[in-house]
Amino acid sequence: MAEKHVVVLGAGFAGLNAVRELSREPSVRVTLVDRNNYHLFQPLLYQVASAGLEAPQIAFPVRAFLRRHKNARFLLGNAEGIDPRARVLMVEGRPVPYDYLIVGLGTRTNDFGLPGVAKYGYALKTLDDAMRIRDRLISAGEEASRTADPHRRRALLTMVIVGGGPTGVELAGALGEVRRHVIPRDFPGVDLREVRVILIETGSRLLDAFAPSSARYAQRFLERLGVEVWLGERVVEIRPDGVRLESGKFIPTFTAVWTAGVTGQGIPGLQVVRGNRVATTPELYVPEHPEVYVAGDMNFLEYKDGRPYPQVAPTAMQQGRLAAQNILRELRGEEKRAFRYFDKGNMATLGRNAAVAEIKGLRLSAFPAWVAWLGVHLYYLAGFRNRLMVLGNWAYSYFTYDYAVRVMHHRHEFPALKTPLEQPAEMGA
Amino acid sequence: MAEKHVVVLGAGFAGLNAVRELSREPSVRVTLVDRNNYHLFQPLLYQVASAGLEAPQIAFPVRAFLRRHKNARFLLGNAEGIDPRARVLMVEGRPVPYDYLIVGLGTRTNDFGLPGVAKYGYALKTLDDAMRIRDRLISAGEEASRTADPHRRRALLTMVIVGGGPTGVELAGALGEVRRHVIPRDFPGVDLREVRVILIETGSRLLDAFAPSSARYAQRFLERLGVEVWLGERVVEIRPDGVRLESGKFIPTFTAVWTAGVTGQGIPGLQVVRGNRVATTPELYVPEHPEVYVAGDMNFLEYKDGRPYPQVAPTAMQQGRLAAQNILRELRGEEKRAFRYFDKGNMATLGRNAAVAEIKGLRLSAFPAWVAWLGVHLYYLAGFRNRLMVLGNWAYSYFTYDYAVRVMHHRHEFPALKTPLEQPAEMGA
Repeated sequence: MAEKHVVVLGAGFAGLNAVRELSREPSVRVTLVDRNNYHLFQPLLYQVASAGLEAPQIAFPVRAFLRRHKNARFLLGNAEGIDPRARVLMVEGRPVPYDYLIVGLGTRTNDFGLPGVAKYGYALKTLDDAMRIRDRLISAGEEASRTADPHRRRALLTMVIVGGGPTGVELAGALGEVRRHVIPRDFPGVDLREVRVILIETGSRLLDAFAPSSARYAQRFLERLGVEVWLGERVVEIRPDGVRLESGKFIPTFTAVWTAGVTGQGIPGLQVVRGNRVATTPELYVPEHPEVYVAGDMNFLEYKDGRPYPQVAPTAMQQGRLAAQNILRELRGEEKRAFRYFDKGNMATLGRNAAVAEIKGLRLSAFPAWVAWLGVHLYYLAGFRNRLMVLGNWAYSYFTYDYAVRVMHHRHEFPALKTPLEQPAEMGA
Repeated sequence: MAEKHVVVLGAGFAGLNAVRELSREPSVRVTLVDRNNYHLFQPLLYQVASAGLEAPQIAFPVRAFLRRHKNARFLLGNAEGIDPRARVLMVEGRPVPYDYLIVGLGTRTNDFGLPGVAKYGYALKTLDDAMRIRDRLISAGEEASRTADPHRRRALLTMVIVGGGPTGVELAGALGEVRRHVIPRDFPGVDLREVRVILIETGSRLLDAFAPSSARYAQRFLERLGVEVWLGERVVEIRPDGVRLESGKFIPTFTAVWTAGVTGQGIPGLQVVRGNRVATTPELYVPEHPEVYVAGDMNFLEYKDGRPYPQVAPTAMQQGRLAAQNILRELRGEEKRAFRYFDKGNMATLGRNAAVAEIKGLRLSAFPAWVAWLGVHLYYLAGFRNRLMVLGNWAYSYFTYDYAVRVMHHRHEFPALKTPLEQPAEMGA
């Protein structure tokens, strides 16, 4: 076959799996485009935010990955748009022509237009986000330790997490452990009752992708750890000095992490449907442009009852692989295949020796789920070295009850605490 | 004895050793003040810049250190000045009264007022500095890989290091290894002849604190590695697009690292002498204010021929310890002791299996010196976990010839290359 140029947009789980698959066909030329020079292992991002892991341990250099894939090259840059008729991708003003395009840009945080969320809330989607949260939490602890005003001190020591999905639950668990095991040793003067980790969820339960029994286990575990789980509460505004709820409650805090929603990245030139995602055929290409594939979190392909496939790593890996395979099939004159989802289940870690996992109807919790979680995450963590380093960090934390990476890169300043008349006094849990 | 308050300013080698010594006397109350929440292990900073180590691996949280020292607390903040008569240290507008003060703020980069050094040169004194250099080198590599203009590409691929002391030599060696072992695998399209590491030293030899034979060995090793060592050349200006030398040469580059000089930090309220350092008695206190001690790089105490003690970690550790001991001696009514320097020698690493070390008249080079360097640095690296992680990273790099931490946190942009008439064409080495 004549040499074809496949451009893969996004070095996430979908993109890397597509590149790996395309490298089986040396006559295909591949260009991988990403605005970062690394693949981010998003499932462990919360551990960077909670000072458990170092940032480079979950970021795998794209060029190290590409060494094993000789037909692929890397182009660093922001993708600005696609001209599907001309078959050209624009990257920072430079045209990149393609024969086939696989788009896997993932999602970004969705603030649903709520006031203050984008400005004062802390997202947890990028490496920068995670390091910013870590810096902020450490800065707040230091500021609290030298603040005499008890109102301000309590606000500094209150961490709010909005969203009871896996990210919110995992971050709450990690911060609950920091509260219990690290703060008493690092800040011996602090009264632990003033240190609050509050997890806010609009629905009536946590982890709605899991079975109710798993959700109950998670909630009980977090509460025993000292995390306050507030269900049925809706955030209506994030302010510089606190979080306002629909119920009228106001939580004075300087750190509100927003994990309550994501939306597809989208890219000019591709029409989007619900959730800013792109509708494709079951073979994963865009109907009007059969040479453009969309894989992973950005893909909107109906799964069950009008809902698309879940936006999780296994979906992205499987779709990235299939998109690449279908391109190779077309080049060989074979028939393309439709996406068949291999459901790997759900897992979320909660803390030491505790997780929930649902795999093929099997429901695990506590220690067995935690071991399963550990194994799966280490298995998928790209790169031999990263696996070793992460395991080392985990073992250290496990045996010392310590979170190792408490390095504040940039200190945060905190605004004055205002208590205007219209807001009720701080509500205890 | 009545409870006395000792304030230790600076969590460097001097400060931490002072705190450790003061903790032997539980009746003394200690406050350690630093603007960062970590102790920085400066001798390995160049490895963060060259992507060999992760930033938190050489940054040890002060609060973790203080757990073992129950009479000490930590105050995060910038010290703004001292009022020695009132015995008050000002930290961000807040007065901190002391009975005794130990000042160990170290040094900062000295640009000698040369044009462009502060603005366009890259210092290597802080964790931020090191991460900025790493980001810049990776950004330059990516930019070079997509630049068609050969002049611009060569400028992007030229790294200049100014200063042939230990920091400059160690960074040059590390970048020389990156050039030889990492770049060909990460950037298979790059012509290695276009990638240049240039080490510029004004004097007639490298490492002037070492014996001439060590300096010759270092130079030969670096040159065999592919580093260009330019001796007897003086930088007169750093511009956004290059480095201008007194000899008239101009090196087009976007990355010039300045390791050619340091100066004492100084602090308002204390008089400084040569090198912005503070003169003390042999007992390390300021003659006019016997309750104020100065230890480490900031101390100017004559050693030999009018020159002060070398600004190295062992001096700082020994002076920090003695300052604390002399305070305790005064409190006990004992006589203070004069500083006696225990010269631990000099070492600098050059690359794989190669270093130079001079210990008590013994001169080592090559593999034995490298093993000695490894052992000493691991021994002094604070914290069991950091030691393990650093050893892991080193072992990985050693066996894979790879530099692991190639994560670009913030991408740098590069200005257009100008070639005005007055500057000669690029000079090859």
